Order: sequence, then structure tokens, then C-alpha cells
Amino acid sequence: MNPFDAASPFDARYYFADRGFFERLHPFVSEYSQVRYLARVEAALAATLADVGVCPRSAADEIAKACEQVTPEEVYEEEARIQHNIRALVNCIRNRVSPQAQPFVHLFATSADIMDTARAVSLAEVTREVLVPDLVNLERQLIQLARAHAATPQMGRTHGQHAVPITFGFAVAQYVSRVGQRIEVIAQAAKNLRGKFAGAVGAYNALSLLSPEPAKLEAALMNKLGLVAPEVSTQVTQPEYLCDYVYALTACWGVFANIADDFRHLQRSELRELRDKKASDPRTAIVGSSTMPHKVNPKDFENVKSMWKAYMPRLTTMLMDQISEHQRDLTNSASMRFVTETVAAFAYGIHRLRGTLSAIEPDAVRMKEVLDGGKDPVTAEPLYVLLAMHGHPDAHEAARVLARDARIQKKTISALLKTDAEVAPYLAKMTPDQLAVLDDPARYLGASVSRTNEVCDLWERKIAAMERAR
Amino acid sequence: MNPFDAASPFDARYYFADRGFFERLHPFVSEYSQVRYLARVEAALAATLADVGVCPRSAADEIAKACEQVTPEEVYEEEARIQHNIRALVNCIRNRVSPQAQPFVHLFATSADIMDTARAVSLAEVTREVLVPDLVNLERQLIQLARAHAATPQMGRTHGQHAVPITFGFAVAQYVSRVGQRIEVIAQAAKNLRGKFAGAVGAYNALSLLSPEPAKLEAALMNKLGLVAPEVSTQVTQPEYLCDYVYALTACWGVFANIADDFRHLQRSELRELRDKKASDPRTAIVGSSTMPHKVNPKDFENVKSMWKAYMPRLTTMLMDQISEHQRDLTNSASMRFVTETVAAFAYGIHRLRGTLSAIEPDAVRMKEVLDGGKDPVTAEPLYVLLAMHGHPDAHEAARVLARDARIQKKTISALLKTDAEVAPYLAKMTPDQLAVLDDPARYLGASVSRTNEVCDLWERKIAAMERAR
Amino acid sequence: MNPFDAASPFDARYYFADRGFFERLHPFVSEYSQVRYLARVEAALAATLADVGVCPRSAADEIAKACEQVTPEEVYEEEARIQHNIRALVNCIRNRVSPQAQPFVHLFATSADIMDTARAVSLAEVTREVLVPDLVNLERQLIQLARAHAATPQMGRTHGQHAVPITFGFAVAQYVSRVGQRIEVIAQAAKNLRGKFAGAVGAYNALSLLSPEPAKLEAALMNKLGLVAPEVSTQVTQPEYLCDYVYALTACWGVFANIADDFRHLQRSELRELRDKKASDPRTAIVGSSTMPHKVNPKDFENVKSMWKAYMPRLTTMLMDQISEHQRDLTNSASMRFVTETVAAFAYGIHRLRGTLSAIEPDAVRMKEVLDGGKDPVTAEPLYVLLAMHGHPDAHEAARVLARDARIQKKTISALLKTDAEVAPYLAKMTPDQLAVLDDPARYLGASVSRTNEVCDLWERKIAAMERAR
Amino acid sequence: MNPFDAASPFDARYYFADRGFFERLHPFVSEYSQVRYLARVEAALAATLADVGVCPRSAADEIAKACEQVTPEEVYEEEARIQHNIRALVNCIRNRVSPQAQPFVHLFATSADIMDTARAVSLAEVTREVLVPDLVNLERQLIQLARAHAATPQMGRTHGQHAVPITFGFAVAQYVSRVGQRIEVIAQAAKNLRGKFAGAVGAYNALSLLSPEPAKLEAALMNKLGLVAPEVSTQVTQPEYLCDYVYALTACWGVFANIADDFRHLQRSELRELRDKKASDPRTAIVGSSTMPHKVNPKDFENVKSMWKAYMPRLTTMLMDQISEHQRDLTNSASMRFVTETVAAFAYGIHRLRGTLSAIEPDAVRMKEVLDGGKDPVTAEPLYVLLAMHGHPDAHEAARVLARDARIQKKTISALLKTDAEVAPYLAKMTPDQLAVLDDPARYLGASVSRTNEVCDLWERKIAAMERAR
Repeated sequence: MNPFDAASPFDARYYFADRGFFERLHPFVSEYSQVRYLARVEAALAATLADVGVCPRSAADEIAKACEQVTPEEVYEEEARIQHNIRALVNCIRNRVSPQAQPFVHLFATSADIMDTARAVSLAEVTREVLVPDLVNLERQLIQLARAHAATPQMGRTHGQHAVPITFGFAVAQYVSRVGQRIEVIAQAAKNLRGKFAGAVGAYNALSLLSPEPAKLEAALMNKLGLVAPEVSTQVTQPEYLCDYVYALTACWGVFANIADDFRHLQRSELRELRDKKASDPRTAIVGSSTMPHKVNPKDFENVKSMWKAYMPRLTTMLMDQISEHQRDLTNSASMRFVTETVAAFAYGIHRLRGTLSAIEPDAVRMKEVLDGGKDPVTAEPLYVLLAMHGHPDAHEAARVLARDARIQKKTISALLKTDAEVAPYLAKMTPDQLAVLDDPARYLGASVSRTNEVCDLWERKIAAMERAR
Repeated sequence: MNPFDAASPFDARYYFADRGFFERLHPFVSEYSQVRYLARVEAALAATLADVGVCPRSAADEIAKACEQVTPEEVYEEEARIQHNIRALVNCIRNRVSPQAQPFVHLFATSADIMDTARAVSLAEVTREVLVPDLVNLERQLIQLARAHAATPQMGRTHGQHAVPITFGFAVAQYVSRVGQRIEVIAQAAKNLRGKFAGAVGAYNALSLLSPEPAKLEAALMNKLGLVAPEVSTQVTQPEYLCDYVYALTACWGVFANIADDFRHLQRSELRELRDKKASDPRTAIVGSSTMPHKVNPKDFENVKSMWKAYMPRLTTMLMDQISEHQRDLTNSASMRFVTETVAAFAYGIHRLRGTLSAIEPDAVRMKEVLDGGKDPVTAEPLYVLLAMHGHPDAHEAARVLARDARIQKKTISALLKTDAEVAPYLAKMTPDQLAVLDDPARYLGASVSRTNEVCDLWERKIAAMERAR
Repeated sequence: MNPFDAASPFDARYYFADRGFFERLHPFVSEYSQVRYLARVEAALAATLADVGVCPRSAADEIAKACEQVTPEEVYEEEARIQHNIRALVNCIRNRVSPQAQPFVHLFATSADIMDTARAVSLAEVTREVLVPDLVNLERQLIQLARAHAATPQMGRTHGQHAVPITFGFAVAQYVSRVGQRIEVIAQAAKNLRGKFAGAVGAYNALSLLSPEPAKLEAALMNKLGLVAPEVSTQVTQPEYLCDYVYALTACWGVFANIADDFRHLQRSELRELRDKKASDPRTAIVGSSTMPHKVNPKDFENVKSMWKAYMPRLTTMLMDQISEHQRDLTNSASMRFVTETVAAFAYGIHRLRGTLSAIEPDAVRMKEVLDGGKDPVTAEPLYVLLAMHGHPDAHEAARVLARDARIQKKTISALLKTDAEVAPYLAKMTPDQLAVLDDPARYLGASVSRTNEVCDLWERKIAAMERAR
Repeated sequence: MNPFDAASPFDARYYFADRGFFERLHPFVSEYSQVRYLARVEAALAATLADVGVCPRSAADEIAKACEQVTPEEVYEEEARIQHNIRALVNCIRNRVSPQAQPFVHLFATSADIMDTARAVSLAEVTREVLVPDLVNLERQLIQLARAHAATPQMGRTHGQHAVPITFGFAVAQYVSRVGQRIEVIAQAAKNLRGKFAGAVGAYNALSLLSPEPAKLEAALMNKLGLVAPEVSTQVTQPEYLCDYVYALTACWGVFANIADDFRHLQRSELRELRDKKASDPRTAIVGSSTMPHKVNPKDFENVKSMWKAYMPRLTTMLMDQISEHQRDLTNSASMRFVTETVAAFAYGIHRLRGTLSAIEPDAVRMKEVLDGGKDPVTAEPLYVLLAMHGHPDAHEAARVLARDARIQKKTISALLKTDAEVAPYLAKMTPDQLAVLDDPARYLGASVSRTNEVCDLWERKIAAMERAR
């Protein structure tokens, strides 16, 4: 086997190709790790049976040891023979224990008890150990960027048109707030994932042969694995827990896609408000195009957006998997496996976004240049509002006509203002500060600076609390 | 205008065609109601300005009155002239007030302040006034059905195959739990919807001309309308609040689709475990097919599933609308309008599901017949578990071989058991109760009855608490 | 009923609100028209039975007349009583004919024979009468725009970065080609729509009581309605024909979305290569923003993109509707109705795109200004290619290093070239024409002009052929 | 590297785990093969330049040889250094050739010329060499199954209810027709895939330095690789060709999902019209459940449906990739790579479906039993039609009331018929053959048999023609 044998571009180009990323994710998302998680649940099941005296402690210990030793290779080989993945695992564990321990392997469990529980544990752990820490680091980068440019004036843009000014930090603060809230949603959805130990149809049929309170045994097993017990199940866990989790990732990914789109637009040749540090590195060997030697492209941002396009639609799979006939059909079996890959690709998105965010630098001089260049029309808003505040009965229309005429006559609004008899009495009532706003858009930043800092303060507190809570 | 002029099948076939449903939803989802909500926000804005002394109270009162009087007809007419929907509304309000009040109409606001806030208020209200009450009633129906059949034995089915027994109430209890949890998610997402009053790019540029603490004014306005203030905004509200809300509806709809699929399969000619009460009404005029006079079809369940197929994919629209360039492009404007229709269609789904649930009846006699007919193979599970509990080292394989041989030899497992020397010593150790299970699947219901009642108890408490909290 | 009563934003804001559009689409997409199409199929069925002598010609004539008279109001009223839409229509027709004609109404047909056939006829007709003519007109507008600017130099952009030059006409020619091909796909998919007349399960069970060659009768009916006969059916037409058709619309819509995105980006304040004619109309009353009086926004392009976001996901509904159990479940019934609305919304997209395309004008002066401003780096490509063509063994790297150094030293590549000893021998070999390219990007347009004209020629021929073929 | 290291479940569980399948697909879909295809296009490019005398033949031969030798390992290593995949490949090829040949490697090409062309070639080849042959074999299996049971009576089912009879072969013939048509659509879409050789922005800027007719060179290169030349391109090929292709696969997959759903429902415990041959194999080691030893599940059909759920939503990615700003943004780069995996997964679907189709067997005896059991109500349709044919003015209503009363009184329709004075005169007019139909649903098969054979004949001819055309 060779990394280039893969058919999945995620495996070949992103996961296998980046050693550090691969090693970080492998313990949670590889097929190898999936078998490990399944074996861990089987071991915990035997331990739970030992806790209630059904199974000798020594048997549970034997089983636990076997669960550590069992390999994916042998499980897959056995599966090829009997055509059942969990029974294959069970047989491999059984083969490694004494006859005394054998009856207790997998006893009272159905395959889905093991698989759904293993999935919940693995997703909860990858979220806690990888996703949330990486997201928190991304959030810190965004906070740092927002704070560093809290007072850097930038042209605000709506519809791609110059609107009124903001600061670059304020633009970034939107993402501090949006990413921050999404981290909370993801962490919450991960904590709400459930396994089950309720048997073939969810009614604890087998387990009731042992105990009149089977739900207590289920809760004990879940507890041992760090999970909350489910309310009620069929053969499988209720699908909404996993669907909520994939939704949480997908909605966060949408915020990444928005960051990526915004930041690459700010690197457009005509905007140049952001630039790639590498572009000014005299030693760089980096190639932007195989034919255009001058190109330096925002390809990491493009990759982040592109991966969102590849994975966002897969939420639809989860929404279809909500439907399963009676106590379960198996048509969710293959499809739900792909959640693991989605998690890995999402982690890759964080990884790539963090890399590119540290590789760009805002150009405050250029931002000021753009703002000053667009100065004239954008002061139409404060003009309208000040006219209205000073009692003009139709201030918006007056300002609109002035802006329109300035545009057509290729003059400035301020030039036209000086000779406009109709607005003169209102201008006369304005304070010097108010008049100054009409001349300098950088005085019309609103609460950009203070809001940026408040949002950063809030999320610094919240992520500190998240980290303490781990 | 005539209801049959509509191009939308939702309007023509479902909403206009059902007078009671139409009247219930019209105040929240019609285009008429959208204009009303916009005007309500404009009125609240003027009142907020009056509260802080910017605008005379009398002017705010004039504006409030004008907002009540303004009609969609005049707003649309003005929009046709100036090509801007909110400025059109503003002009219509202005035309109805004195010159003294005119400057205060819409002052400091951008269109999105009004539209996003109006959307949040309307969705919060339709959720509180229609969706949650109707969902709670649906939940009560499910609880009633589950309790009534908590002890009605039914064959459990996985992969479409007979598995092990449950009770019909236990099958329904799954939906009690799943729908119940979804009601909580929907109510929570609705409460988390946000408006804004932060101006053209979210930085309170205009409002800062008035006040050094513009966010307090925003919070005051939101509070007046029953909304939580946003953390920070661009020209528009952060898209995730709305996306979360549409997700919440969509995920609940998936549960409806599962109920619909399950219940129509239970009406299959070969199952007949559920039946339509109308089928046995001697006076019914209902036609099931235009060519097959004998048909009685589960068409309401089919409709519920079909509407899910029509609306579920629309969540993708919301996920794409998370991306908006810079301080906002307008490419989310038309697309987000459709949320209103999604809400109405979801309400229709509840309505239709409630109707059909009250029209079907479980046939406990038939359920027992099916269970008894499938008796033999399904007791293979307790056989395996009991063999294992009594120390058989390879109990699953022993039971598998017995079941296979019974199938091939067209005998029963119990017949083969009697002559099986290998399992005889383990059978000898079993108690009479245990042996009885092997003969009667209705003794192998696990915790079906108690779990059903526990789930119903839990959700009765929870929905009672929800209703108190309203 | 009032247009503002609608819950569908498509109905309320777009279809009802634009009288000309409404009148153009109403005969094909309204619920009224759906009933008309159903009645037309019933009439054609009776006529077909008369053709083969089963039904007296006078009865068929009576039925045809009744089919013209039947109203949606009476059909819906009857449906409310008997709960079956097609039987309701049949009863209404029956009530209008003599007892002699009554047995022949709907004889041998199942509801789906009528509904699926009516859908195919209505979609084929709206495509032929509205969509294709409007698309052809859009194509003509694009051809005209491309030809008018076939030789207008414009900066080519990849990754949002200046790449190498094209002409604006060449940029538009892409859309001439893409829209042109999509028209062909749509027309083809519409022609391939099928109805059926094969009864309750597709096997012509009832019709075989009459004729040993029932498929011939089906073909005759299809032929009478302008449709191709189906290969084989269940109760319903094979779902792929409709799915292909909706895919064809959706893929064309994606091209519109790309045009819309491109054209609004070209209107960005920093690009200004396109502008809205209205912006320079001294009498315009048009408002761009309710608070920023200076705004002129590309809102029609934004609307086109936004409607794509609203409707594109609905293709997923069709893909789910491919699955129907056995000879048909009805879970595709409600969902397929929405195709009508999709067609209307697509027609609206063409309508809106055509409007906005005629409202914008390219600014050739500005395009030249941008191209000249970006001149220096973009000549790195011809430099590399010419160096290679003259034998430089590592031309790309030489040009890359020059471009990088120019960027860092804030010089031009041409300035650095003059003192670069390494490339001097290769420059010495270049012709004056080749050297001129390095100084003027407008000489590096490649085949932009000729390709633009060739593409326009091709599609002018093709759409002329399409029109002749109607 | 180890197959269990993969994060993609497709790689780990399906592709790596099935040796034969892996070896069949690896030459087309592995990352290894992608590099091979890219190198093949570079070699063809040099050969094309040699054909027109630009590049010495010996240089082109050197390059061709180097292209055969270059390894993914070295390309990835170089990419890690320079951050550009195609320039990395070019460098690796250059390093293997003489200085004389070096300038001609990749000359005039942009990366997308190579990548898009390689993608088109690889997809065209995998379609021709794997997908179409496997689909044709699947089609043959379906034809064989349909013919074998062309005359096996089966109950037809609509809405899950007994409708009127068909034959099992007729049910299968639907899939013969639907799969057959989809093969044609796939083959056509594959043939319509396009590459390009038009440079950085599609205007042949670089190539025009060489030739006044650059499009001829492009056509020559495409022709050498077995592709049709494109009409016009930007930096990239028009996205619709690929989107059409993925749509073609997706729509075919939907037919598989329908087969899978139908066939697993026919295996339901209550239906048992199909069964798994393995279930009656006395030596089988196959396990159906880890806890229910008696289970034999339709897990291959479930897998086919489940993989459809995993991959169908990915068409949405292609629909989003239709939009690329200006002459191209790169946000389609990562996302389009996944098409390779989609193709592999689709091939796996065919593979799995073929396997399970050969493992099931229809049970004609059981089918007859079900049909006879449902006999009574389903004859209501011929009763209605015959009454109408014999002049009953309200035959449907008469039959509906009889069927309703039979249901309520738990009698048969035929019993009630005997005492029904109102219908007696019409029964009296019926022929013995017609009366026999009312007694035996197996006489009411319509044209099931002949249509089955006609459809099979048609597709046998068509696939034979397809094979000749290869």
C-alpha cells in the first residue's frame, strides 16, 4: 500500500500528504482507530458486566487485554469469511481469551450497541482533543488580528460598492463573534452525542434476561466511556444527535468559507488591502502559476472555500439518514461512516485557514488610500442623517439628488453643497465636529473601535472559560 | 386575483385550499403580514427615539399610527416607482405624518435593520403562537398512542426482517422522544433569532452621530420587540441564527418523515398492523384511486414524506447564504424570503400529520398474529443469550447453526432443539421462566412496557413545563 | 383573495407583482392552468377512444366540451368531498355529459395517466412557448454585447489577480457558448418528457380488456398531445425524464449565476468596468439604499444569483423522487408539483437577467485604464514564453525571479530587464513585434477577437436553426 | 502506509478491502493514476509541438520518455518545495531531459490545460473501460432476470397496497429500461467531456505568439488524446461538461437505489417474494446479526442505497462549481478532485449490485400465494372497467361501494356481486372470458408478458450496438 494508491483525494492529497496533520488525526479518524474504538467499547462492556457480578473480573480483564491486542488485519480477514464486521471483531476477541471468558464477549449486545457507542466516543474525543483546541487557536488568531487593526480605517462595502467606513478590526470582529459562537455549538453537539446498550430493537430484550433494570446497566456503560445515556433507542441511536453534530461542523465551515471569500477579495489586484507575506520574501521559491510567473494567488483561501463546497452538501446525507424503517433498516450504515472523513476534512480546513491567516498581512496604508479615494460619495449618509437631525423634512431625497447630480456632473458632493441654497440653513445649524465628518470619512467610523474591543474581550473570556472547562 | 392563479403549489393546493389553516398562518407568513411586521419595527424605532428624547413623543405616536394604517398596496406601488422596498415603506409612512414627524421616520436605520428585525420578530412569534403549540399537541397525540399500546406486543423489525419483539407503544415512544427533543431545539432556535439596529455596515455610524453608546439604543429597540440584542453585525444580522432555525425545523421534519414512512409501511397489505378508520366507515364517500375502486391509501403519510422531500433540500440555501462578501452582498435577499414559506409548509406538515394520526387505528389482534407467525426464528436470540449465560462457550454459533438448519429443513428451532445433544446440558440448567421465553415471543418484550411509560412520563412533564414557560 | 395573501414569496413578490410576467406565465404554471391541462388530457383520451370506435364520436365531443367548461372551483369542491383530485375532475366532467357519454370519461385510465401526461404536455409547451424563445432572446443580447466589445481590451483575471489580457467581448463569448449549449439541453430534455396511458401498474391491465395492442392506443394518445410514447411505465412515468428536465434548467441557471457574479464584480467601486445606465440618468427616482443616498447597487444581478440559491437545491428533490416503491408509492406526489414553480422562477430569472443586461454599459475607457495600470506584471507571461521560444532552458524561473524582484524592489520588470545580463542574449534574438508585446499588454490579446466572432457566428447559426425548427 | 491508515471510509472499507475491485479501478482513479494522466498530457503536448515543427522530434521523444518515468513521489516532493502541483510535475519532467528539450516542456500551456485535459481523458477512459462494460453486464443480468420471470404472476403494489397484478419480469423490465437509458446518457456525457489548450485565460495568448491559428493546435492535441475540442474556454474548461457527467452518474445511481429499495422490500419477512440463496446453503458461515443468530439480511441492497445517500448530494458541489469569477477563481480546485472518488464509488455500486442480484432468487410459488391471497379486492378494477364497457353509467362508484361493503362485512366482492340486482344486467352481458377475469387475478396481467419481452428485445439490440461501437 502506498499513499498514492488512494482513490479519495482527501486521503491522497491532504491527509497522507501532510505528515503533521496525518499524525494528529490518525488516532481518531483512521480505519485503524475505528477498530480500536470498537474494541474499547467491547472491553468496557465486559468491565460493566464484571461490575455487576455477571462476569468474573478475571474474564473481563482477559477480554480487555484481548481488545487491546486485536488488529484490524485479523478483523477484516474474519469479516471476509463471515460477512459481518462486528461478529468478526467478536470472534477475534473470543479467539484470544480462555473458554471461561468466551461467553461474556459481546454478551447482551447487538452490533449497533458497539458501533454507535464507538462512533459517539470517537467523535466526542476528536472534538475535545483536536477540533475545539484548534478552533480556539484559530479564534485567538482572529482576536489578535482584530485587536491589531481595531483602529485601522477601511472602506465598508455593501453590494461590492463603497458604503460607509469601518475599521479592518471591526470587519474581523464579525468573525471572532461568529466563529466563537460556532465553537460553542460544536462543543455542545459533541457532548450530546449518545451511544446505546439496548440490544437488537432497543427494548433491552436480552439484557432483561439478566436484570429488571437494564437501563441502569446501559447508563453505567455509557458513563464508563464518558457519554450521557440515551433516552430511548431502536436498534440504533436516535439519528438526530449525529445530525446535529454534522450540522454544527457544517455551519462553522460556512463561516470559514465566508472568511476565505472576504480575504481573497481583499487581495484582488484592484483592492490589495491584504497581501501575502511570501510575495515580498526575496528567497521564496513559491510558484503561483505554471505559465504566469508573476502570480501570487490566494490559493489557501480558495482551498478553504473549495473544501466547503465539497463537504457542505454531505449534511444532506445525514438528513436522509434520519429516516430508517421500523426498528432500523441498514441504509444508514455506509453513509454514516463518512462522518469520520468529514471531521478530518473539517480539521484540515481549520489547519489550512490558520496557516494562511498567519501568512497574510493587512496593508493599512492601502486601506487609507482606498477610503480617501472613495471619500466623496460615502459622506452622503452622514449628510442625510445630519440634515434630518437638524429638521430637514426630506433629508434622504435631498442627499440622494445631490449625490446623483455630483455623479453625473463629475463633481464632488461637497462642491455642490456649497452652492445649494436649499440645504444651506441646515448646514448652518451643524457643529464644527459635524461638518468635519462631511469632509473626512475616517471621522465617520461609528463605534467600530469600541465594538471590536468589546467583542474581543467577550470571546477572550469565553474561550478561557472553555479551556478551564476541559 | 384568484387562489388558482398561484404558481406556487404550496399556495394553491395546501394553504389557500384549507381555510382554517390559511387563517391560522396568514397573520405570520403572508406577504401582507410581512409588510405589517416591517411597519411594526419602524413604529418601535420611532418610539425608541422618543424614549431617549431625540424625537418628540407626539411624532412617535403619529408614526405609530401611520404604521398601522400603511397598506401593502401603496408600498408596492411606491416600490415600483423608486425600486427600493424599504424606502418605499418609509415614504408611505412619511406621507401620512406631519412635517414635524417626517425626519424621524426610519432615522439612523438602514433597510436591513428593519427587514432583519422584522423577520426575527415574525419567526419568533409564529414559532411561539403556532409551531410550538401545534407540536405540543402532536406530542400529546403520540404520548396518548404510546400509552394506549404500551403493552401491545408487536414484532420488532430490522432490515425489514423479523428481529425480536417490542410493543407498539414502545415503537411510538421513539417518536415521543425524538419529536419532544426537536420541539426544544426549535423553541430554543426561535428564541435565539436576532434583529439589529446598527446601520449600513453594522458599526452604528449614523447612530454614533447621536449617541456615544449606540449599542444601548439597539438593545432598547430589540427589547421592545421581544428580541435579544445581537453581539455584532455587518449590514445584516449574522446568518447563523436563521440557519440554525431552519435547521431546527428541517431536522424535526425528518422525524415526521420517519413516522410517515413507518406508519405507511405498517399499513402495507401484507402487514395491516395499522388501518385507516375511514376504510371501515360504511358511509364514506372517499375515493382511493380513480381506477381501482377498492383502494384505501395512506396518502396523508405519503404527503408528509413528500413535503419533506420538497423542503428539506432548502436548508442548503441557508448554508449558502452564510457567505456574503464584505459588509454584505445582497445575494441572500430573495433566497432568505423563502424561509417564510418553509415555516408555513412545516406548519402544514404538523397539521397533516396530526390529522392522519387521529385517523388511523392499530390492530392489536393482527399484531399478535404476525408475532406468533414469526415466533420460531426470533427466539434464536434468547436461546443464544441463555446458552451463553449458562456457560456455552460458542453460543451464538450454536444458535446460528440451529436457525440455519431449521430454515433449510423447514422445521422449527424448538423441534431441532429437542434432539440436539450438544445444547441439552445447557437447556437443563435453564429455569422454567427462561424456557418459557423460548416458546413464546410475547414473553420476550424486554423493557418495552416500562420504557414506554417512562418516556411518556418524561415528556408529559417537559411539555407541561414548556406551556408554563410561555 | 389578494396577491398579498400569498405565503410563497415567489407568488407575492415576483409573479403577482409583475403584471406582464404574470400574464405570460399564467397559462402554463398557475393552478388554474394545471386543471386545464388535466382536462385537455381527459378530452384527448375520449377522442382516442372514439378514433378506435370504442366510444361514439358524439360522446367524445360532449366530453371535450365538458373538459373546456370544467372549472378549478368545482373540481376543488368535489375533491374536498371525496379526497381524490382526479376522480373529482372526472366526476365534474361526468356531471356535464349525457348518461351515454358518462362511461367513457376516464375509461381505462388511472389518475397518473392523466397527471403525468398533463405535466409532460404543460412543461413541453411552456418550454417551447416561453423558455426557449426567452433564452434565445437572452442569447441574442449576449451575442450583441460580445460583438460590440469583441475588440475592447480588458484585463483578464484569475484568482482575482491580474493575469493576462483578453477583450470584454471574449469574456462575454464564454456565456454565449455556455448559455447556447444549455438552451439545446433544455429543449432536448423538454422534447423527451413522456406521459403514459398504461393504467394502474403500467401493464395496461384495463386497456387489455379492450385491445390486444394497448401500447398502440397509448402511442396514439401521446401523439395527439405532441408527446413521444414511453418505453414502459409503472403506475407513473419513469422519473428520469422529469429529473433530466429539472437538471437542464438548474445547470442553465448556474450559468446565469456565474454571469450575475461576474457582472456585479465588474461593477465593484474599485473596478467600475461596467456601470448601470440609470446611475447617470438625471431624472432617475431610483433609490439604492434607505440610508446611503449615494448607492447604486447591482441588485438585479444579486437577485439572479439569489434566486439560483433558492432553487438550485430543489434538484435534490427530483433525485429523491427517483425512488418509488414497487409499482409506485405516492411520496413523489406533492414534491413533483413544485416543478411548475421552478419553471416559473427560472423564467423569471431569464426575464430579470435580460432586463439588467440591457441596463448596464461597459466602460471601455476604464477597462483600458485598468489594463494599463496592471501592465507591468502581466507581461511576465509573454516574457517567459518568448525566452523559452528563443531557447532559454529555464525561462519560467528566470521570469518568476524577475517578477518577484520587481515586486519587492517596487520597480517594473522592464526596468529590471534592461540590466539583466542573463536574459540579454535572448532578448537580442526577439523581433520588434515580440519586444513590443513586452511593452504593451493590449498587444497580447491572443485570439480574443477572432474567437469572440467565431463563437458568435456559431450561435447565431444555431439559434436561427432552432427558430426554424419550431 | 497501511490500508487502515485511511481516513476515507471509501478507501478503507470498500476500495482497498476488495482486491479485485481495487485492481480494476486503480489505473483510473488512484492519485498515482492522476499523476500518470497529467504526464500523458504533457507528453502529448510536446508531440503536438513536434508535429508542427516547433519542437524537435527528438525533444518530444525525450519528454515522452520522461513523462513515463516521472513518479508521484518526486512530484509531491517538489510540490512541497514550490507549492504548485503542475509546475512541480513540469520541473520533474524537465530534470529528466536534456537542456535542448527543456524549453519545450509545458510550453504555451497553463496548469489548467494539463489538469482539465487529464481529467477529461481519465474520465472518458474509465467510463469506456470500466463503467460502461460493467453497466452493460448489469443490464444483461436484469434482462436475464426479466425474461426468466416474464410470465411469473406477481401482485402489483401501489402505495404499499395491493393494486392489480403484473409479472415479476415486468417489474424488472422497468429497470431494464431505466438502466439502459442511463447507460446511454453516461456514455454520451463521457464522450462530451472536454479538455483545453488555450492558456492562462483561454484566449491562446501565449500560443498566439507561435501561430495565427492556435485553435487548430488545441484541436490537434485534443484529437491525439481522443477528445473533442472545446468551443471556447477561460483558464478552465466550461464546467457544464463535468457537471453533466456527474449528473449522469447520479441519476443512474438513483435507479440503483430504487432497485435496491424494491428488492429489499420484496425480502421483508411478510413478503418473502425474493430470497437470498445463501440462506438455504447448508454450509454457509455467514452471520446476519451479532446477537440475532437467525437473521439473513438484505445488506448488499442496503449498502447500495446507503452509498447513494452518501454520494448523491455531491452533485450539489458540481452545481456550485459552475460559478467561477472572471477568467477563473480556484475555488473549484479541491472540490472537483472528488469526482474521481465519485466515479470509483459508482463503480463499486455497480459491482455490489451485480453481486447481490446474482445471489437472490425469486420465489414464484410465494408470489402466486400472495396474489391469490389478495385476489378479491384487486378484481374491483376489472369489475369497474367491464361494467363501464357494458354501459354502466356510474361503474366506478358501483364497484367502490361493493368493495367498501365487502371490506366492512368481511365478505368477498364476488359473494356480494351474486346478490346485487343493480349490477346483474351488466354481468349478464359479459363474456365467459370477462367473467373469468373477475375470478382469477392471474388472468388480469394485461400486457405484462409481451411488454417485458419487447423491452428486453430492445435493450439487447441496443447494448449489442453499444458494444460494437466501442
